[in-house]
Amino acid sequence: MEIRNCINFLLSSSQNTVFKYFSKRLAEYGITPSQYGVLNCLWTYGDISPSKIREILNLEASSVSGILDRMQKNELIERQIDQNNQRAIIVSLTEKSMAIKDGVEAVVSEMNEKFLEPFSDDERKILKKALFTIIDME
Amino acid sequence: MEIRNCINFLLSSSQNTVFKYFSKRLAEYGITPSQYGVLNCLWTYGDISPSKIREILNLEASSVSGILDRMQKNELIERQIDQNNQRAIIVSLTEKSMAIKDGVEAVVSEMNEKFLEPFSDDERKILKKALFTIIDME
Repeated sequence: MEIRNCINFLLSSSQNTVFKYFSKRLAEYGITPSQYGVLNCLWTYGDISPSKIREILNLEASSVSGILDRMQKNELIERQIDQNNQRAIIVSLTEKSMAIKDGVEAVVSEMNEKFLEPFSDDERKILKKALFTIIDME
Repeated sequence: MEIRNCINFLLSSSQNTVFKYFSKRLAEYGITPSQYGVLNCLWTYGDISPSKIREILNLEASSVSGILDRMQKNELIERQIDQNNQRAIIVSLTEKSMAIKDGVEAVVSEMNEKFLEPFSDDERKILKKALFTIIDME
C-alpha cells in the first residue's frame, strides 16, 4: 500500500505540520499546545477537576497530571482541595493565565483559518465530522 | 473557541486514537508505526537512502536516524555504503523484515478499513485530500 493512503500516516503527518506551527506561535505566550487544551477547558468551564479535563481532551490520566505539574510550576494554574469534597482536586486559572487569554485565542483563530483556508465550507464540515468520528471510535 | 473546533485538537486526538490501535496491532510483529513507515519505503522502492526516507515520510533527519538505529539493532534493516558513492548510505531490508511483510500489510489494510469504514467514498476522498493539503502546507 502507498504510504499516502495509510490513515495513520495521513493523520500523523498532518498533525505534525499543524503542531509545529502551533507550538511556535504559542511559544510567544510561554505555553504548549497541550497546555492550551487545559487553558481552553478552564476558560470555557471555570474551575474544573483533572478527570473532567482528561475527559474533554481525550487524554490519559498520567498525561494530564504531567501537563498540570508543568503548568503549576509556571504559575499558569493552581490546584486546590474541592471545598465540597475533601478527597477531590479542583484546577483554577491564575492571573497570569487569565492575562494571556485574548492573545492566545487570537493565535488559535489564526491557526485554524490558516490550515482550513484551502477548503470550502462543505469540505470543512466533512473533515471535522470525519475527525470527530475517528476520535469517538476509541 | 470550542476545543472540538480547533484543528490541532482534532488532528492530535484522532491521530492518538489511530496510533494507539495501530501500535498495539503492529506489536505482534515487533515493530512500531514509525518503523512501519520505513519498511513501507523499503518494500515499495527497494534499497533507499536515509534522506529519501525522510522526504517520503515527511520527518526530521534526526528522527529518521533514531528510527533506523533501533531497527538495525532489531535486525529489521541493514545500513551499507553505497557502492556508487562512498560518502552515501543505503538502507536495505533483512530476512526478518522481508518475512513479516504480508502479515504487516494485512494489519495496515485492516486498520484503514476499520477507521474509514464509517465514511462514504466521497467523504474518504475529501478527508484524504484535506490531510494531503495540510501536510503540504508545511
